[in-house]
Amino acid sequence: MAANSADLLALCKRRGFIWPSFEVYGGVAGMFDYGPLGCILKNNIVEAWRAIYKGREGFIEIDSETVNPKDVFKASGHVDNFADLITYCQKCQAPFRADHMVKGFYENPDILTPKELEEAFVKHNIKCPECGGDLGPVDEFNLMFKTNIGPGSARVGYLRPETAQGIFVNYLNLYRYNREKLPLGVIQTGRSYRNEIAPRQGMIRMREFNQMEVELFVDPEDKDWAKFPEIENEKLDLIPNTTLELTTMTVKEAVEKGVIANRVLAYFVYTTKQLLVSMGIDPARLRFREHEKDEMAHYAADCWDAEVLLSYGWTEIVGIADRGCWDLSRHAQFSGQDMSHFKKFDVPREVEMDKVKAKNKALGPRFKGQAKDVAAAIEALSPSDVKDGKITVKVNGEDIELDGESFEVVHVKEKVAGERVIPHVIEPSHGLDRIFYSILEHAYEYDEKEDYTVLHLAPVVAPIKVGIFPLMEKDGLDDVARDIYSKVHVAGAEAYYDGSGTIGKRYARMDEIGTPWCITVDYETVEDGPNKGTVTIRDRDTKDQKRIKASEAKDIIDKLLAGMPFASL
Amino acid sequence: MAANSADLLALCKRRGFIWPSFEVYGGVAGMFDYGPLGCILKNNIVEAWRAIYKGREGFIEIDSETVNPKDVFKASGHVDNFADLITYCQKCQAPFRADHMVKGFYENPDILTPKELEEAFVKHNIKCPECGGDLGPVDEFNLMFKTNIGPGSARVGYLRPETAQGIFVNYLNLYRYNREKLPLGVIQTGRSYRNEIAPRQGMIRMREFNQMEVELFVDPEDKDWAKFPEIENEKLDLIPNTTLELTTMTVKEAVEKGVIANRVLAYFVYTTKQLLVSMGIDPARLRFREHEKDEMAHYAADCWDAEVLLSYGWTEIVGIADRGCWDLSRHAQFSGQDMSHFKKFDVPREVEMDKVKAKNKALGPRFKGQAKDVAAAIEALSPSDVKDGKITVKVNGEDIELDGESFEVVHVKEKVAGERVIPHVIEPSHGLDRIFYSILEHAYEYDEKEDYTVLHLAPVVAPIKVGIFPLMEKDGLDDVARDIYSKVHVAGAEAYYDGSGTIGKRYARMDEIGTPWCITVDYETVEDGPNKGTVTIRDRDTKDQKRIKASEAKDIIDKLLAGMPFASL
Repeated sequence: MAANSADLLALCKRRGFIWPSFEVYGGVAGMFDYGPLGCILKNNIVEAWRAIYKGREGFIEIDSETVNPKDVFKASGHVDNFADLITYCQKCQAPFRADHMVKGFYENPDILTPKELEEAFVKHNIKCPECGGDLGPVDEFNLMFKTNIGPGSARVGYLRPETAQGIFVNYLNLYRYNREKLPLGVIQTGRSYRNEIAPRQGMIRMREFNQMEVELFVDPEDKDWAKFPEIENEKLDLIPNTTLELTTMTVKEAVEKGVIANRVLAYFVYTTKQLLVSMGIDPARLRFREHEKDEMAHYAADCWDAEVLLSYGWTEIVGIADRGCWDLSRHAQFSGQDMSHFKKFDVPREVEMDKVKAKNKALGPRFKGQAKDVAAAIEALSPSDVKDGKITVKVNGEDIELDGESFEVVHVKEKVAGERVIPHVIEPSHGLDRIFYSILEHAYEYDEKEDYTVLHLAPVVAPIKVGIFPLMEKDGLDDVARDIYSKVHVAGAEAYYDGSGTIGKRYARMDEIGTPWCITVDYETVEDGPNKGTVTIRDRDTKDQKRIKASEAKDIIDKLLAGMPFASL
Repeated sequence: MAANSADLLALCKRRGFIWPSFEVYGGVAGMFDYGPLGCILKNNIVEAWRAIYKGREGFIEIDSETVNPKDVFKASGHVDNFADLITYCQKCQAPFRADHMVKGFYENPDILTPKELEEAFVKHNIKCPECGGDLGPVDEFNLMFKTNIGPGSARVGYLRPETAQGIFVNYLNLYRYNREKLPLGVIQTGRSYRNEIAPRQGMIRMREFNQMEVELFVDPEDKDWAKFPEIENEKLDLIPNTTLELTTMTVKEAVEKGVIANRVLAYFVYTTKQLLVSMGIDPARLRFREHEKDEMAHYAADCWDAEVLLSYGWTEIVGIADRGCWDLSRHAQFSGQDMSHFKKFDVPREVEMDKVKAKNKALGPRFKGQAKDVAAAIEALSPSDVKDGKITVKVNGEDIELDGESFEVVHVKEKVAGERVIPHVIEPSHGLDRIFYSILEHAYEYDEKEDYTVLHLAPVVAPIKVGIFPLMEKDGLDDVARDIYSKVHVAGAEAYYDGSGTIGKRYARMDEIGTPWCITVDYETVEDGPNKGTVTIRDRDTKDQKRIKASEAKDIIDKLLAGMPFASL
């Protein structure tokens, strides 16, 4: 039976996967804590993602701050554009997302303007769902949590709405670390924040959430990927924005037919599928939907969402975008730093061009010690930056306007060794909590007749790899069980020792939390006979049981985790 | 040569361990980002800590939210007491920590009151260090970052100043997960925040920092630890608050002489030493200092700081405290939830006692559907809660005052199966960034004559385990090197492929970032002869080199990481 989100959330709470935050104080909507099992499952997802991006692809990882000064989000656009439309009830003052109020009356309520929404309230007689009062004016509400850095309110800070900006603002450090070469792949996982007006849908829309983001900086003229041929014949379920219809094709076809913009983007769309399926996402409930034209960011070359079918409907859990030069261009512009890449030609070329040249003689007396910086800033400009005979340069944080006394545009013929390009960004951005929840829904099986729940979690993500039970906690059975537990658990494969209740109950507890295997120590283990020194190992999905040597239990668990089929035991 | 913090921070920045945050926007004091090498080193520290607390001790881990509603920090005391004293220059408005202004004039400036500080400014003619202006009045400045949850300012939130509170507010969930048994050990790692007035000292005082906290809930009458005998003869360098002098004794002696309050606390003081030393902290620069009596929290039974000697002087990097029943008592009181543990007697005892009993007949008509909750809240009180014949109960968030019509105090004789106790908390709290920095300082060796730097990082924390170099990037040497790289790196032991510069330069680069071993592929590897198929492996600390089979490189790295001495190769 498919998962019902309420049942699944109840299981998650009862068994320690996730807990609504601050429940003893009445709770806060849109916030969840990861309990003991959830914390392990979440870490396992992170490790699976790292194994692909850091291990297989050799990308580098950073960990940057969550509180950021305003400059960062001025450049990224979040200060000006990261907002939902809000309206308050005029009677009870309750806040609502304005577009949610008119659902059912419009197909895409989120494209309505504040004025259109206000008119819609009147036209359709929409009232406060809590008290029936009139809804008030519609305003923008910025979704970043705001705070102050240091005393007073002089320095505004925001909790980051995405981990990506921490990579972009460190781009120059990262580029140097990579010895100024492209491609440069950087990953980051951690908290992000979105101060939702009225969060709903459990873990799908959280105010404090976890991301795993990948920012791959590439040469804009080289959007290929060396390992592309290895996966080019693999299949993808795609919904292109040209047809809006589901179509299955190979990665290679998708690029050749122009469905996916380029090979590097297609490679990472497929990588996303690999990662999700390896962690137990059902491929039959996974598709990639291209952003529709009015949905795609104006700067994006192409953008795909990995969507999974949940009890909430098709839900985005990963976005894979070619963001063009947007991110670095913006931060270069707002910080005044050069974030371009020098691309060497195979042979130097002779080119004719117009250039902006500083008049150093005029700059020296005027700018003194700063003159060199001003000259460099001038010569970093191109002739198109000259407006009405004037230019503006940013030096040490200050805007300086200059006229023809300080610079000139000259026509030159030069041998150039290469050219400067702004790297483009390929971004697979993963919603960790959504992936976590989706894995649970796709693993969930409830047998109504037997009132029995099994989570068919892939071993790689299962929080507990093996349950270890002494049939009775006496006669030395418990010693053998504890010994196996120590060996397996301390070596890093999470184990759970359970000595209470019938064996059936103990299996049921492990099935319910998705433990792939259970080991039982019984009297045959300790008594003379053909099975002395052996224990029973049981497989969660087939319920098959085999006897193995107790002394080999750790090795066998390691082999099963490495992919050996249970049947071959 | 001992580390100089400026040199070390320069190395950290140059080689990608840590970067001052937001440098392209002018930076923010007290904030650092972990670069590629730092991120791995930091994760390695977390894994070493997990291996002890989760692996060896079997504690459970959670991951709770960083934005918390005000109630949490009202209960914890942070809203009222987590403050530094601040003064502003009356001329330039620059903010300063008031106690820092009078350093040099007083031995413990941090115990002065605001009034005493204001008087001290006048008496010692202390002026603004930036502009010479007069310092203004001294006020409290709360060090929590403040924000609002949801729209408007109705719901104040704070960024947590410690991860511990996330464990305490989940105590009931955790206790149930542990089947209502003690001891119950819970760990959490993640971000915490402290909005410093004027941060200094690099990574020692960060506004956004990382913690690894352990909260061990124990029976207040049973402060023993089963594994204590395994370590009781190990030695500790202690500074007790009775003598304030360094003394070395065994863990057992420390408890028997009353130097450390109890066996469980002493066990975790020693565990802290084990963890730190295993990660490369120099035991000769590590000591445990007991909080002085006026320094210790009033509720703490005992508290020790692990201090390491850094270029900044002796610095606290871990605190290990017996916090008594403070944390759970406060949250029980503020949330109105019962957080006690039921401790079963071996045989039931007959006891006489006074009890508060609800008068159910009076409650029904008055409280209707709530009557049962009110009755339960009444009977959870003890006779000492009755003040002037009245009691106050909290039901569903509301305080209700009741008089003798609703309850009575009765004298009863009862068979009781056990008693309710509030668990005590043993808390080893680790400053992750400080540990990170201390490991680097203790690993740092700079040879001035040779202008050569080596980081002697313990292999368990070293970010790169092995550097892999082809002597030349041709003739197939690079293929062999890349093959070894893939096998080692993809299996999870971080490797670094370097094909440029002289071999000496490449060794130097790896020594500078603390890579324990390097493998070089040369012409002997590929040409016929006795060394065909072998590569050179070099040890960082001894500079010894051996030839090993290329095909065995991965296994050998695994064995070295598991502790095999290089000399035995």
